[in-house]
Amino acid sequence: MTTTVVVGNPKPGSRTLDAGRLLAEALTGRPADHVIDVITLGSGLLAWGDEAVAASVRVVQESSLVVFASPTFKATYTGVLKLFLDQFAGGTGLRDVVSVPLMLGAGPAHAMAADLLLKPVLAELGGTCALPGLFLLDSTYAEDGKIAEYAERWAGVATALTKVS
Amino acid sequence: MTTTVVVGNPKPGSRTLDAGRLLAEALTGRPADHVIDVITLGSGLLAWGDEAVAASVRVVQESSLVVFASPTFKATYTGVLKLFLDQFAGGTGLRDVVSVPLMLGAGPAHAMAADLLLKPVLAELGGTCALPGLFLLDSTYAEDGKIAEYAERWAGVATALTKVS
Amino acid sequence: MTTTVVVGNPKPGSRTLDAGRLLAEALTGRPADHVIDVITLGSGLLAWGDEAVAASVRVVQESSLVVFASPTFKATYTGVLKLFLDQFAGGTGLRDVVSVPLMLGAGPAHAMAADLLLKPVLAELGGTCALPGLFLLDSTYAEDGKIAEYAERWAGVATALTKVS
Amino acid sequence: MTTTVVVGNPKPGSRTLDAGRLLAEALTGRPADHVIDVITLGSGLLAWGDEAVAASVRVVQESSLVVFASPTFKATYTGVLKLFLDQFAGGTGLRDVVSVPLMLGAGPAHAMAADLLLKPVLAELGGTCALPGLFLLDSTYAEDGKIAEYAERWAGVATALTKVS
Repeated sequence: MTTTVVVGNPKPGSRTLDAGRLLAEALTGRPADHVIDVITLGSGLLAWGDEAVAASVRVVQESSLVVFASPTFKATYTGVLKLFLDQFAGGTGLRDVVSVPLMLGAGPAHAMAADLLLKPVLAELGGTCALPGLFLLDSTYAEDGKIAEYAERWAGVATALTKVS
Repeated sequence: MTTTVVVGNPKPGSRTLDAGRLLAEALTGRPADHVIDVITLGSGLLAWGDEAVAASVRVVQESSLVVFASPTFKATYTGVLKLFLDQFAGGTGLRDVVSVPLMLGAGPAHAMAADLLLKPVLAELGGTCALPGLFLLDSTYAEDGKIAEYAERWAGVATALTKVS
Repeated sequence: MTTTVVVGNPKPGSRTLDAGRLLAEALTGRPADHVIDVITLGSGLLAWGDEAVAASVRVVQESSLVVFASPTFKATYTGVLKLFLDQFAGGTGLRDVVSVPLMLGAGPAHAMAADLLLKPVLAELGGTCALPGLFLLDSTYAEDGKIAEYAERWAGVATALTKVS
Repeated sequence: MTTTVVVGNPKPGSRTLDAGRLLAEALTGRPADHVIDVITLGSGLLAWGDEAVAASVRVVQESSLVVFASPTFKATYTGVLKLFLDQFAGGTGLRDVVSVPLMLGAGPAHAMAADLLLKPVLAELGGTCALPGLFLLDSTYAEDGKIAEYAERWAGVATALTKVS
């Protein structure tokens, strides 16, 4: 099973990336195979046909489970993450990929964004979005126990699906 | 595996009910075990503690897979369906139930409602919402092939999950 | 200018009602002319053609400004409120009514529900939804200052629109 | 009254831009004062502090009415548009700007996106989002009469608000 973390933070090497890694490992029991820090793909994201972008899209499509991680900007996912998702084919771009929406925010007011706003985009791309959106506080995610609690509840579902897919 | 169809149409015996049955059978290969036509529960829905309502809630909770079917009223699910869902416990009320959102409408303009609006309520109740929301035209659902197409794509996922749960 | 508060709490005389009254008064400078505590309409809500329900619909339609107030159930508005909204005509049922979405919750996690979920239903009914959804904590709304802050920011917009309508 | 059209299509000079212009003119009776074709801002969008991006943000903030126009990508607005919106301050970035959400799509299935997905971002930025989201077919918007119908219904509201703001 190949697992990947996609990170949509305009700042490379962010806490969003760290939280994504922690979640992927908690769900699968081992480190993610790939991390795609979208911002490092640079201006190729603004057009179609960039080779590095296309290679990253393929890495995602060949994964069994992918965590899509974003900070909360304007009460939803970032433009940077959406730019990358816009590179996938509608309906089939995430076919058979167990797609896990993860968002981080400074406070709890935007807790619904992962489930209401990010998950539908992944579903539109054909991903298997069986796990609920997870929203974490960016100041406490590393030690507040929410990643472990989520993984305990949902790892079985993720595993069952990565075998089907 | 026990399967149930929950129908939130103010009119009993509706096309919504028929479509729900067809979908449950397409996903599992056999007729649904239970159909709950919510409106027939009557005014007990407007309070807490009604015995018939509570019995229906238990039927849902003891099912492996439940289709939640609603016509589209005001661009979303009906008040009748939501009344019934309000009777479940938040976070756990649909735990381990593979919960499939189904909506019917007169035209395509509200096609996003099943995924964007009905599915999040089922997710909030703790359901395993692995399948995308399905939106059908109420005039053509019985023969337009969309139920079969959806079942072909998603029955494997549903089956894998009803074994886990 | 006639103002009305519509309350979708299954319990009559709720804090939701109280908060709705406070908001209407803060926005207009005087008490609401009408309060419709939906649950008191009883089982007529479950069908079409009930006279008391129809009279309440007319009160709303003849108002310039209406606060639609709901507690948060399952991360969204209640079935009771939606039952009442289902009685309005799509597209025109709230025409020229400045329609203000208000939700109360026990904690901040569902703060997005008023804007993302309740407001679109009012918009679908043709209401003039110029004010953002307001979400209040049910334990502190009476004294946390959020109603006054919201009214200070948006009363001018509401007033300008009730003159146009 | 200064009016602006913001266009979030990855292709410059798009039909999205054309539709945005038509809508702004229909609402106000004269051509838009400014058109910001976001993609032409280039890679400055991917960082903070770019001067051309900041100048465009100011143009928006100094406008009375702004049409935010996007094609539908993955059932929602584009990453390009969101990149630009991410440059505004949360809560106040669109204060006193009558903000009109416009989306174009190839078919009717995503008609809810303008109201459910784009409008909440503009509301989060503090815009006065009094007009409903408008969704147009990209093949027929120029002659199907929907822009005129929308303008006839909502121009009065827009005008009343641009005087208040």
